Amino acid sequence: MEETSEPYGQEQTKKSDEAIIHIGNDPVMQSAVDVLSTLGNKKKVIIRSKGNSIPNAVAVANIITEKMLKDNSKVEKIKLDTENAAGIGRMTSTIEIILIKN
Amino acid sequence: MEETSEPYGQEQTKKSDEAIIHIGNDPVMQSAVDVLSTLGNKKKVIIRSKGNSIPNAVAVANIITEKMLKDNSKVEKIKLDTENAAGIGRMTSTIEIILIKN
Repeated sequence: MEETSEPYGQEQTKKSDEAIIHIGNDPVMQSAVDVLSTLGNKKKVIIRSKGNSIPNAVAVANIITEKMLKDNSKVEKIKLDTENAAGIGRMTSTIEIILIKN
Repeated sequence: MEETSEPYGQEQTKKSDEAIIHIGNDPVMQSAVDVLSTLGNKKKVIIRSKGNSIPNAVAVANIITEKMLKDNSKVEKIKLDTENAAGIGRMTSTIEIILIKN
């Protein structure tokens, strides 16, 4: 997993009612609490992850929508993409899960 | 979503215009060719994967829609779910990617 210059963690976008959170190899529950607390302030949280961290992002999304904020949140949209890592032409898969509060 | 005794690999559903393919730890390109040849016969292919194989499923979907069948296929829908593994209450994330030919 190549993460180049993006800052790890929470990131504000122009629209102040959404936030982007990058999920890496941290413990899943820790990331989930991070997303949960962000969802307290924002209506929409975009979870991004790539490569081998993708299952973590999926797990976080499921924990939020099925346990922590069951009935109060849902997955609005999921986007898959591929990015080319520098040099040797290896492709890295990326995922973007958009969570919204009801 | 409990998947208990389903055989690994390709699987016919009742509707004959779709097929389910489980993606495991096989080489990504091999799985992609498998999906490609299935898409030759079916209008819709459902890619399923769980746990640490999820990035493989994402990679396969991207290879199909962005390389092999660019402009002729797309991701119709992505579903995320969690299943409880037997016993100790560990959760496993699952993904289901629905690919369709245009």
